[in-house]
Amino acid sequence: MIDFQTSPDRYRHWKLSFDGAVATLAMDVDPAGGLMGGYELKLNSYDLSVDIELADAVQRLRFEHPEVRTVVLRSAKENVFCAGANIRMLAGASHGHKVNFCKFTNETRLAIEDASENSGQRYLAAISGSAAGGGYELAVTADYVMLIDDRRSGVSLPELPLLAVLPGTGGLTRLTDKRKVRRDLADVFCTTEEGVRGKRAVQWRLVDEVVPPSSWEAKVAERARDLAAKSDRDGQRGVALTPLQRQFSDDGVTYPHVQVAIDRAGRQANVTIQGPAELPADLRGIHDAGSSFWPLAMARELDDALLHLRLNEPAVGLIVFRTSGDPAQVLAADSLLEQYQSDWLVREIRLLLKRVMKRVDMTARSLIALIEPSSCFAGTLAELVFAADRSVMFAGTGAGDNRGPATLHLSALNFSAYPMGNGLSRLANRFYGEPDSLIASAERIGDTLSAEDAEALGLVTFAYDETDWDDEVRLILEERASFSPDALTGLEANLRFAGPETMETRIFGRLTAWQNWIFLRPNAVGEAGSLKRYGSGVRPDFNPERV
Amino acid sequence: MIDFQTSPDRYRHWKLSFDGAVATLAMDVDPAGGLMGGYELKLNSYDLSVDIELADAVQRLRFEHPEVRTVVLRSAKENVFCAGANIRMLAGASHGHKVNFCKFTNETRLAIEDASENSGQRYLAAISGSAAGGGYELAVTADYVMLIDDRRSGVSLPELPLLAVLPGTGGLTRLTDKRKVRRDLADVFCTTEEGVRGKRAVQWRLVDEVVPPSSWEAKVAERARDLAAKSDRDGQRGVALTPLQRQFSDDGVTYPHVQVAIDRAGRQANVTIQGPAELPADLRGIHDAGSSFWPLAMARELDDALLHLRLNEPAVGLIVFRTSGDPAQVLAADSLLEQYQSDWLVREIRLLLKRVMKRVDMTARSLIALIEPSSCFAGTLAELVFAADRSVMFAGTGAGDNRGPATLHLSALNFSAYPMGNGLSRLANRFYGEPDSLIASAERIGDTLSAEDAEALGLVTFAYDETDWDDEVRLILEERASFSPDALTGLEANLRFAGPETMETRIFGRLTAWQNWIFLRPNAVGEAGSLKRYGSGVRPDFNPERV
Repeated sequence: MIDFQTSPDRYRHWKLSFDGAVATLAMDVDPAGGLMGGYELKLNSYDLSVDIELADAVQRLRFEHPEVRTVVLRSAKENVFCAGANIRMLAGASHGHKVNFCKFTNETRLAIEDASENSGQRYLAAISGSAAGGGYELAVTADYVMLIDDRRSGVSLPELPLLAVLPGTGGLTRLTDKRKVRRDLADVFCTTEEGVRGKRAVQWRLVDEVVPPSSWEAKVAERARDLAAKSDRDGQRGVALTPLQRQFSDDGVTYPHVQVAIDRAGRQANVTIQGPAELPADLRGIHDAGSSFWPLAMARELDDALLHLRLNEPAVGLIVFRTSGDPAQVLAADSLLEQYQSDWLVREIRLLLKRVMKRVDMTARSLIALIEPSSCFAGTLAELVFAADRSVMFAGTGAGDNRGPATLHLSALNFSAYPMGNGLSRLANRFYGEPDSLIASAERIGDTLSAEDAEALGLVTFAYDETDWDDEVRLILEERASFSPDALTGLEANLRFAGPETMETRIFGRLTAWQNWIFLRPNAVGEAGSLKRYGSGVRPDFNPERV
Repeated sequence: MIDFQTSPDRYRHWKLSFDGAVATLAMDVDPAGGLMGGYELKLNSYDLSVDIELADAVQRLRFEHPEVRTVVLRSAKENVFCAGANIRMLAGASHGHKVNFCKFTNETRLAIEDASENSGQRYLAAISGSAAGGGYELAVTADYVMLIDDRRSGVSLPELPLLAVLPGTGGLTRLTDKRKVRRDLADVFCTTEEGVRGKRAVQWRLVDEVVPPSSWEAKVAERARDLAAKSDRDGQRGVALTPLQRQFSDDGVTYPHVQVAIDRAGRQANVTIQGPAELPADLRGIHDAGSSFWPLAMARELDDALLHLRLNEPAVGLIVFRTSGDPAQVLAADSLLEQYQSDWLVREIRLLLKRVMKRVDMTARSLIALIEPSSCFAGTLAELVFAADRSVMFAGTGAGDNRGPATLHLSALNFSAYPMGNGLSRLANRFYGEPDSLIASAERIGDTLSAEDAEALGLVTFAYDETDWDDEVRLILEERASFSPDALTGLEANLRFAGPETMETRIFGRLTAWQNWIFLRPNAVGEAGSLKRYGSGVRPDFNPERV
């Protein structure tokens, strides 16, 4: 089982150190610390174990270190910054693992950019030694990329000439869209195994600055200070991300606010989220509650549950979302998040919720939300209704059921706080062709919406009353489980994202989709393909056909 | 060999008829008329042979029928509009054929939309009978989609439940981006084999109007007239698209203005375009010249050559573009295209050149432009320099060479006439991060640019003088031929398109890339997969893992 929970005292691959407003996150991969056997993580190459620690560090820097305004990404090893994803790991991994590994590493890199853009925690990449492949892709997540000019250090994306795969951790997209490297120069760069160094790396926009060795450390410190000076980050005391309380069983995992119950015969995971019981009264109370504040606790648990399902439960094709609790309490939590949004911690919690909801969007499983009596799909939790491929709501009251009818509730957060990767709120994405419907929904913020209301507003797919509910829901779930998992993945990856694309969605859409295709082609993964033959001294044997 | 040239007198699958401003393009597929053996094209299902005729009809309607302002797409068969791509054809086709078939069909559908948007030739889909899969995808290329309300006719995208593949001819993207169908309703639609009919089809935005059988023909005629009335199309006399003069040999094909010489050992096609010899003096002369007017003749020949290379020469990994002629003459042709741009025929020629250049962008072969002495990469032909993955220019003059140095020339057309699929001119795409470079180039319109000028302006990748030219060019071509064809396809599909995406690029990026992935998965193409088992009565056996 792959566990996504860790903490700095358990890191094997990273060293985190602090100096006032500047933190240093130094990569120092333990060659023997790989997740699976059969490969050594030489030269700061990485597998998922290294990235799980990176994701944890990036998250903790945001919550536990409000004083940190610049994070310097560097290597603790001589002569190498980072050699990228470990090739023997890739060669040995299943297709599913490769795809999920790439997805998680992409999400982590986007989380770095999210910290830079939205948390006032800017990243600086200080490249000394070789930054190759995923190593360079990691570096360009930073706001500012420095390269030492020592005739040995350089940057490269050698995936294509060396491995016959793409720089798939955002590399190609960040070259064109973020670094704005001219396309023909990007072509030369990506087909040149040895890469580029020195002044040409600046001329081609691959790095922002080259610095002679004599002034390297001083310049890195200066640039780190400069970036810190521009930050709006102002927190005093961090919030510890305490270990998640989890109980794994054969058929699921239980957290305080999230329960995952797996129905293996139905190939479905029933994920139930508990609404908040108690909430703090004010900002002071939020800070005192820290990681037990419901929105933060729930977000961390849901995130962990999603990653668990992705990596450890590949045969689960459906995720069925339910909620349980008092909608008024969820709306009260949303009010706190809205009222205190300028506070650094509240900002971090909103941003984490945004990222977790994006993780939902990017989860390649069919998502069904069931809105039943006693549920609390309100505000932030209603995002799951809009993230779902289909949402079905119970209409009316069941015979002898004294719980009252199912309700749905919108809060202001549904319209602004949680943009999808394409930059649209889930409601704006849903109503891409119907601006009037978006306005009509906004006018109902805070109202108690019945199934009839929700259906009329277009907020749910279908409403069924007691007579039809059981049969209709069963049919939807059974039918979904009967379809081709691959075709559903492709369908959902298209329908979930309407209209505009961003660098982020282009990474997951254009770049990743092509990489996944290449990851199935014999030229890469066949017995005579590049990944299998890498390091053997025998050249791969390519089928020359272009398709 | 697959031939893309045809004409109405040879159509086996379509009937074209005319009534003033309204043309009717009726699908009447000959079941025995398939391109390859082993399948019957029942129920107006199609293979590439059907689409080659459709593309030809769409093209001829634009050039040969300036009087036509509305094209009614309908079926000549009872009870079926179109059943989509033939499944047995797909099941039997190679991966490469499937990919190229889908690409061409997508290009043809985009050409229909181009006619609607830019030529004043609007399309109306009149669906009587079932429009399933690719049949519905074809219908939604129209501006206006009508459905007869006869309790039998309906629209559906049954690819996923029936075949475990995607509606890959733009279907998913047009649902979200063009028809603006709500994503959860799109999900229901795409997973419901029997589809949707009647009023629900309108409510879900799947069609624009349902019409009872009693008023069907009258209403179709009325809507066709309404669309025609809005058109700005004003030509009087069409221009016949005369048969292309081609000579095929074992190692290429020769047209009057385009020569394709295949170097099989080097896996490269050397494509040389001849600049214009004589040009008409004025608009009257352009119309008199008709399909022999150089820009039109050259565009048609290059288009045919590209399609030939794509489908019939899969082992050719590189296309090397050269030109030969007088750059002043190319600029003179551009001046005619610019001066008379408001004329309907000149507009059509510009739009055709735009589409052909897009075909270049979408061709999954490495593109190298070599700018040598005696070449005429000027204006319209310079687009090939900017479409290429790399462009290399000869600097200075060779010893004993009295041809003078190589030159490059820009015209106004490079900045506006030929947008790529992403909506940017090739130069704006190239200088996506450098607006100043775009301005600097615009200031040199009409100038004779030397290799040094072109390199300094960023218009070519490298300039080499006589000393280095042969070796450097050889190295580029040999190196390119040594790389994995699949990885190059993925690399180029990413680097060629910077920044913004449009519905068009989302079809080729997001949708097509996922479809190509699915086309490799055993759940679709394996012995127990959906395509192989279709029609056998045995359900496909899916690997349940989601990746």
